[in-house]
Amino acid sequence: MDAKLIVDEVRLTPILISDPPLLNVQGVHQPYTPRLVVEVITRGGVSGLGETYGDGVYLDLARPLTETLRGRSVTDVNDLFALAEATDPTTGPTTDPAPGPTTDPAPGPGEASGVDAGGLRGVRTADKLRLSVVSAFETACLDALGKTLGLPVHALLGGKVRDTVEYSAYLFYRWATHPATGPVDDWGAALDPAGIVAQARRFDRAYGFRSFKLKGGVFPPEQEIAAIRALAEAFPGRPLRLDPNGAWSVETSLAVARELKDVLEYLEDPASGTDAMAEIAAGTEVPLATNMCVTTFEEVPEAFAKGAVEIVLCDHHYWGGLGRTRELAALCRTYGVGLSMHSNTHLGISLAAMTQVAATLPELHHACDTHYPWQSEDVVTTRPVFRAGRLTVSDAPGLGVELDRAALAALHRRWLDDDGSLRDRDDAAAMRVADPEWHTPKVPRW
Amino acid sequence: MDAKLIVDEVRLTPILISDPPLLNVQGVHQPYTPRLVVEVITRGGVSGLGETYGDGVYLDLARPLTETLRGRSVTDVNDLFALAEATDPTTGPTTDPAPGPTTDPAPGPGEASGVDAGGLRGVRTADKLRLSVVSAFETACLDALGKTLGLPVHALLGGKVRDTVEYSAYLFYRWATHPATGPVDDWGAALDPAGIVAQARRFDRAYGFRSFKLKGGVFPPEQEIAAIRALAEAFPGRPLRLDPNGAWSVETSLAVARELKDVLEYLEDPASGTDAMAEIAAGTEVPLATNMCVTTFEEVPEAFAKGAVEIVLCDHHYWGGLGRTRELAALCRTYGVGLSMHSNTHLGISLAAMTQVAATLPELHHACDTHYPWQSEDVVTTRPVFRAGRLTVSDAPGLGVELDRAALAALHRRWLDDDGSLRDRDDAAAMRVADPEWHTPKVPRW
Repeated sequence: MDAKLIVDEVRLTPILISDPPLLNVQGVHQPYTPRLVVEVITRGGVSGLGETYGDGVYLDLARPLTETLRGRSVTDVNDLFALAEATDPTTGPTTDPAPGPTTDPAPGPGEASGVDAGGLRGVRTADKLRLSVVSAFETACLDALGKTLGLPVHALLGGKVRDTVEYSAYLFYRWATHPATGPVDDWGAALDPAGIVAQARRFDRAYGFRSFKLKGGVFPPEQEIAAIRALAEAFPGRPLRLDPNGAWSVETSLAVARELKDVLEYLEDPASGTDAMAEIAAGTEVPLATNMCVTTFEEVPEAFAKGAVEIVLCDHHYWGGLGRTRELAALCRTYGVGLSMHSNTHLGISLAAMTQVAATLPELHHACDTHYPWQSEDVVTTRPVFRAGRLTVSDAPGLGVELDRAALAALHRRWLDDDGSLRDRDDAAAMRVADPEWHTPKVPRW
Repeated sequence: MDAKLIVDEVRLTPILISDPPLLNVQGVHQPYTPRLVVEVITRGGVSGLGETYGDGVYLDLARPLTETLRGRSVTDVNDLFALAEATDPTTGPTTDPAPGPTTDPAPGPGEASGVDAGGLRGVRTADKLRLSVVSAFETACLDALGKTLGLPVHALLGGKVRDTVEYSAYLFYRWATHPATGPVDDWGAALDPAGIVAQARRFDRAYGFRSFKLKGGVFPPEQEIAAIRALAEAFPGRPLRLDPNGAWSVETSLAVARELKDVLEYLEDPASGTDAMAEIAAGTEVPLATNMCVTTFEEVPEAFAKGAVEIVLCDHHYWGGLGRTRELAALCRTYGVGLSMHSNTHLGISLAAMTQVAATLPELHHACDTHYPWQSEDVVTTRPVFRAGRLTVSDAPGLGVELDRAALAALHRRWLDDDGSLRDRDDAAAMRVADPEWHTPKVPRW
């Protein structure tokens, strides 16, 4: 194999990035959220970039993998999964393909582990954590390969089938400021229908998004129904989505679906669990989407067999990278299930990766989610510009982004300086700063 | 996009290749069988190779696609499917994603179209034909891309996970010579258990194959059971497969499975149709494999839901190329279904493509089928050498094979000189040369 494609070094840089006080069923986003930047540097001197969750459990898995990668070719992404399993300190070096034990006792029904993506990712398993780590290594390898060859990542994935990728505005109930640390932006509070509509208008003006998604599960369903109704009046005919992160019962979900059936593009994870989703799906014509009941390949067969979801939200951080995201798309195509794209708090490296893979998926017929407009900080030199709600697919080599090393160093410094209280994202703990009595609600909450 | 990756020209060369008188349920292989060699030549002067079925229906689909490809990048393989559909002369230029009409009235149950792969490919649809054509174009694009970049095709597919690929000996009942044209090789006849064992011994000696597959559906099941028993005695502990191409009833299939359950690695397509296969699967512990009831993505959900197959035989000519073969592998992995590899009569270009993609599939746990040892002619300059039943995965750029232009010209001359009687493979017609009363048997035959 070409020597210039051999991995010479892998750098991991955990960072803390500023995040606004966005509300969800778990609590509220922390003032700073952990991310991990992965750099794969080749003997040819090219640096490939990847980005994933930065909590300690991910770091623990990523560290031993860096050594394993050294001396291998950046073209070898198929075996990253087996490598990650073999180097997983929670399972030990093994070639046994059986899934290792979970790193934590699995949370019981209605409980959340409180760590993964603020507790919004379902039961935490060693497998899910590994896939998120692999995703950043895979993306970094593809970026390095593309930069070396002079090809965009989409060309390494079989080529783009569209020149722009549509994104959706991600509306949140939110406070104006974090309770302890003060304001991080000028968006102000949004705690009622008028506030949500005002937020949507600003997204519309600034980015041109046509689709709107409201993160629900924060207020009683009547209030969230009213917010969606207000959006439908303010933006007639626009695709609208509501996502309460599994906070509702089957009955509540069906009632909300009845109320909003004329305006919803889809209802995302109204209730928790495949059986509840299947029951709701059977009782409404509103399409159900998920990034909670189907987040791994293992969860696909049961959910598809039960007709629990009509649209799966792909997310390369969840599914193990860009190649696996394409495999999920093939599964959805085969089973006649729709495809959209999910997002957690992320920076420009992940946005570039999302855009590159989305460009290659003929199966993608919904605008992708992104938290990106909420992020005031980044580690890439140039912020991407949304026009008419879309990003142009870069044809530059690799992901088409460049690392801002000064910004990376500053955000890493923040991580180093943290006393450990923010290094693991915990939206319930963040909420307890304002409300000491807060605990993650049992679901169904309503 | 890099100008040297742009397609400058696409050449289609239909050829007729010598084929021995191998017997199957349809009849017998013709003395010459049609194949199509696709060359994609870039502005950089690189020629990428692909190979697929060469019957007229495939040529009719391939010809308009050559013009469409000109001026596009060889990296753009994702949209070949849409392009092929848009240029399909049987559907006309259209952007409608709905499947076009079949090119032929669909054969009724128990009938065979008599053209595709000698009638062994189930109901012929426009979709299946297009996927076979696209597979050759995709392979040729990947070969050209790899040659341009200095990377093997496996590296373009995420990297090999093994250094050698195991193949299986493909045993056939056969005559010594074609009735009208005389002998093409020195293998002699094999028409009983002793003949099959002798054939297996020669495969074992010459190639080191460890697995043996017998093409059945030729003689009454008792005789084929006896042949497998004889193989099991001659080669104790070796993986054995029997494939009657759907010739048996459910009852017969279950009876054969009972007789051979202690020696079969798997039973391939004992009966025709998903329901029959599901009924057999429920009644035996012998794993059922298929390359007939699941040959397209559309056929997957029903077959998997019914538990009709435990092992799917992938085939990049069937499934639309190397990328789609990897998608099939992901589907099988997700649903806990095993993966093996199918072959029809093919040359060294396809063997190289099969080996490259097989090398990238962690899910592949069975030796691949190949007809290649039966082929005395080829269009590549160097015949690959099987050692211990395995081919070494080439790390040379592209597929790692070179076109023998003199050989290609000679085989094309044979195609030009043919009066049209052999340009569409028809194993039943070939059988009628020996037995004018022969007609393709209705299945179940036994």
